[in-house]
Amino acid sequence: MADEIKLLRLWASPFCQRVELALKLKGLQYQLIDEDIWNKSELLLQSNPVHKKVPVLFHNGNAIAESFVIMEYIDETWKHTPLLPKHPHGRANARFWANFVDEKVTIRCVFKTASIAYLGKDKAQEDSIELFSQQLKMLEAELAGKDYFGGDSIGFVDIAAFFIMHVYGVVQEVKEAELMTQEKFPVLVQWLAKLEANDLVMECLQPSEKHLAHVRARLSVLDEEAASKTKAA
Amino acid sequence: MADEIKLLRLWASPFCQRVELALKLKGLQYQLIDEDIWNKSELLLQSNPVHKKVPVLFHNGNAIAESFVIMEYIDETWKHTPLLPKHPHGRANARFWANFVDEKVTIRCVFKTASIAYLGKDKAQEDSIELFSQQLKMLEAELAGKDYFGGDSIGFVDIAAFFIMHVYGVVQEVKEAELMTQEKFPVLVQWLAKLEANDLVMECLQPSEKHLAHVRARLSVLDEEAASKTKAA
Repeated sequence: MADEIKLLRLWASPFCQRVELALKLKGLQYQLIDEDIWNKSELLLQSNPVHKKVPVLFHNGNAIAESFVIMEYIDETWKHTPLLPKHPHGRANARFWANFVDEKVTIRCVFKTASIAYLGKDKAQEDSIELFSQQLKMLEAELAGKDYFGGDSIGFVDIAAFFIMHVYGVVQEVKEAELMTQEKFPVLVQWLAKLEANDLVMECLQPSEKHLAHVRARLSVLDEEAASKTKAA
Repeated sequence: MADEIKLLRLWASPFCQRVELALKLKGLQYQLIDEDIWNKSELLLQSNPVHKKVPVLFHNGNAIAESFVIMEYIDETWKHTPLLPKHPHGRANARFWANFVDEKVTIRCVFKTASIAYLGKDKAQEDSIELFSQQLKMLEAELAGKDYFGGDSIGFVDIAAFFIMHVYGVVQEVKEAELMTQEKFPVLVQWLAKLEANDLVMECLQPSEKHLAHVRARLSVLDEEAASKTKAA
């Protein structure tokens, strides 16, 4: 029996895009199901009752949630074209840096200390971006001298980091904020461009106008929230 | 050559205790190095420059950081007495619940919305404990009908959850707060008692008077911080 693979996802979510790229790198056929996260489906509520979040992967009817957990599952189930290195120490290193991406350099990490709506507009927000830059420098150092985090080919950390960092470009365009410039992060910017030139990677992304419109809409909601908070304070 | 295994740790840290139990379950010999986290050692700063946190495991000179990353490393390096299930779907499930423990039910999760120093003393803090209880209920449901999260024997999620939950008991004693009672969580309380009766588990814990004194000291610092915040506001 052929494997039945379905991915419940939100098209703009970098966490869902990670899973899609992992499936593509393995050469697997899959079906996409779009989730409406503002009006959650029965399928989502039943398959991930704990977090009620996408992505959820269905493999022959079994549901698996959380992007890194799914990526490990994919790598363990289909062993060709490995995403994680073979040796336990290399695997530990990859997991460490993947976790680092989620904890330190997502757009949410800038949000935490400053509304992205006001990026760079006062001292607190400058400090927030400075801290963010320091974290990015660590990733820049980890990547230096290699083609990919995974070495010669796209691996676990590349998948983890790429879609998170691809969003920086969109945010920069909308907000004229400088999150990751060529001058400060030459290694990461070159790596990003290399991945953006990869057909499988591009297949996981939507046209940039659609993505821009989506980010504009989300940022304007955040702008309003920040404004009403300022008013209330 | 015999493996050289060293663990840089803080004795009261549940994250470090996880690694110790994983090593013990594998029957491995190791050396403990006590870290002073208020005056961090060169060894810590050099071996985990990114987070500067314990635990750090050294295996034949190679450093690995973060408790779950280390536990995966141990399980991949020494394959007898597996901590994770064999099948990818079981492994995904274990990783999902281990992450759940760290995200939802550590003592820090109560801290987030209420100072533990004032547990249960006003509405906001009651709400915080109520939310915490709802998360614990999910773990209670996951464990129901099984001896251990890992099935018939102690596995990845048992190690992940035990030391986190063992702290509840100490906090309850110091603060007279009710975090996990027999009435509300019979399955978890029974499981906790079973693990507390296990020799290998007990070898990872310090005498309860020492632990109580440590938690009292930490909570009194938090009390002071909360009091000075209230004063400043």
